[in-house]
Amino acid sequence: MSASSIDIEARKKGIKIFQEKFSKLVKKIMEEKTPSIIIPKRTLSNTIYDEKRKLLLLGPELLRRSFLDINESKKFMQTMLIASIVYEALVNNEYPTIRDLYYRGKHTIRYLDHRGKIVEENTWDEQRESDAVIRDLEVYLGLLREELLILSKEKGKVVGRMKIRSGDDIIDLSKMGHGAYAIEPTPDLIEFIDVDAEFVLVVEKDAVFQQLHRYGFWKKYRAILITSAGQPDRATRRFVRRLSEELKLPVYILTDADPYGWYIYSVFKIGSITLSYESERLATPDAKFIGVSMTDIFGDKGKRPWLTPQEAKNYIIKAKDADLKRAKELLNYRWFQTEQWKREIEIFLNKKAKLEIEALASKGLRFLADTYIPKKIETKDWID
Amino acid sequence: MSASSIDIEARKKGIKIFQEKFSKLVKKIMEEKTPSIIIPKRTLSNTIYDEKRKLLLLGPELLRRSFLDINESKKFMQTMLIASIVYEALVNNEYPTIRDLYYRGKHTIRYLDHRGKIVEENTWDEQRESDAVIRDLEVYLGLLREELLILSKEKGKVVGRMKIRSGDDIIDLSKMGHGAYAIEPTPDLIEFIDVDAEFVLVVEKDAVFQQLHRYGFWKKYRAILITSAGQPDRATRRFVRRLSEELKLPVYILTDADPYGWYIYSVFKIGSITLSYESERLATPDAKFIGVSMTDIFGDKGKRPWLTPQEAKNYIIKAKDADLKRAKELLNYRWFQTEQWKREIEIFLNKKAKLEIEALASKGLRFLADTYIPKKIETKDWID
Repeated sequence: MSASSIDIEARKKGIKIFQEKFSKLVKKIMEEKTPSIIIPKRTLSNTIYDEKRKLLLLGPELLRRSFLDINESKKFMQTMLIASIVYEALVNNEYPTIRDLYYRGKHTIRYLDHRGKIVEENTWDEQRESDAVIRDLEVYLGLLREELLILSKEKGKVVGRMKIRSGDDIIDLSKMGHGAYAIEPTPDLIEFIDVDAEFVLVVEKDAVFQQLHRYGFWKKYRAILITSAGQPDRATRRFVRRLSEELKLPVYILTDADPYGWYIYSVFKIGSITLSYESERLATPDAKFIGVSMTDIFGDKGKRPWLTPQEAKNYIIKAKDADLKRAKELLNYRWFQTEQWKREIEIFLNKKAKLEIEALASKGLRFLADTYIPKKIETKDWID
Repeated sequence: MSASSIDIEARKKGIKIFQEKFSKLVKKIMEEKTPSIIIPKRTLSNTIYDEKRKLLLLGPELLRRSFLDINESKKFMQTMLIASIVYEALVNNEYPTIRDLYYRGKHTIRYLDHRGKIVEENTWDEQRESDAVIRDLEVYLGLLREELLILSKEKGKVVGRMKIRSGDDIIDLSKMGHGAYAIEPTPDLIEFIDVDAEFVLVVEKDAVFQQLHRYGFWKKYRAILITSAGQPDRATRRFVRRLSEELKLPVYILTDADPYGWYIYSVFKIGSITLSYESERLATPDAKFIGVSMTDIFGDKGKRPWLTPQEAKNYIIKAKDADLKRAKELLNYRWFQTEQWKREIEIFLNKKAKLEIEALASKGLRFLADTYIPKKIETKDWID
């Protein structure tokens, strides 16, 4: 098989970093010293919100994983097992998935215990064990799994006024017809070529993305239009981050007006708690929440609502207990403790009402595309 | 907004059929006759499996929906409401979603009952009510909702040796880099231009699609590679059907070895029970189940298994009670009552074991791409 030149380069880089990081360990073993590695701690207590950079980051705590420590030896061996499988896949031009890596490493080890009895133990039983070790490997190497050519399923789509190079092809994202470009699992390998856009609009819902695309929104407003199709995956987050960082394009996030939508926004902007070690590469601190906001629905001091009372009556959905609970939880996160967010959540808890983006499209796709979104951007009526 | 010429044509066609179908009704009302429409019955009892065509189809039963029948008048009015909203959207260059249509039609009607009391009644309360009426409209008009430019979220992706025209663009599906082409919600409007493929491989899992794509499977084996990313949506089914019907390409379906995978295959091939009225357009009766089959895992008379006993031990997952129950249900469907399928399900119920496609990729992506799939096709080791 002829792999793309970009993949060949990525493999070389990965192999080099592997060799640098693990050669010390090999040396230790050769010198008959205790094999161990030191890696950043991926625990909640070591996850901090950096007020200045507005990012969830790993703190300074480190852990030592040692072969000859009875509490650590299994984890140490699991880490080595994953490392060797990933390394071999790099060398052998393979493209494993995380599910693959789980299968590849899964086997039973038979050994004699200190009493001379035969014991059988599995390397791991469930995928979350191997997934956790893959995350350890990522922080140890300082590489995202995508950079190690580990693939995964992807939901993100993009269309708009730009070209990209992916693999050995140049793709014009303004020539996708009524379909879209499905973002690849390794977005770091994409090259941005020819950008003629003024901003990026990220829509939570695929169906609304389809509507705005079909309507020609991105053509008319010189935009790049993206959907995460729900909770964003890593590739979509990295893609958006790169558009923000490298092209300096403003990024606006459009979600449902409910705690689930707010959380999607915060994953794009701040990062997620379980993957805080990746925020530095995946989060987009400059992203703005463009709506739909509670003040859009109900108005506020000096702000008129976008919906008539009759529309509000037809479109608003009663919040469920789970929504209210989730909203209260969000209030505990530091990054939701700004004046604007506290006001949003206050209105929500008070009105017990949520709204879908589709409701705005129902008022008229023209209203959503030609009035609501452009006006919100023009008047900077967003939450940062 | 400049809509694509293809959309403009689609609108014209939709409007024309609307006018034909509803002009009789308007005439009746003008003549002060009872307004009513006759539509095919979308009930389980009127869903039949056509042994010869190997399709789930609507039977011959019809129902009359009449305005002046107290049991039918609400349904009649709902149908007229949806029809008028969809018609207006066609005329006004809108692209509604089914969620939209629910919102657009949702309102409260106030009227005086026969005692002169004011009564309030909602047009509908939940989306499944409006969805059902949309399906009625589809069978009444003989048009799929996609042809009425009603959009929806889409998961299907494609790459491979062909070009298509979508909207006003020509898209080369062999030049998608490491990403893919996300299939549009209105696949009837796609034109196949330049096909240089010998078969279509549909993979249930997006992650395996990514692997095969990255490996260059479709280049090497002159194929079109598609993923449904789980249970297939309507657009993916219609796209696959058109490849089979219009281009006469063989279609192979690759799923997990479990009842869920088998059902995905049968939705592609036969249709789904709830949407039987669409099978005629969405199902692909010639599709073959290429694997992973139970006999691939365990072998059978005259067939050696593809996995070593050690691999089988590592990769096989124990079936859950729900899986066993589902398998027994499938045995009740006529289209699973063939020798081969009965044997598959028998082995499954006997071994109580399932397997994911990823397990074959774990054995080596090369094994999956260069041995398993080509060999299965070459030796016709599939289930029809």
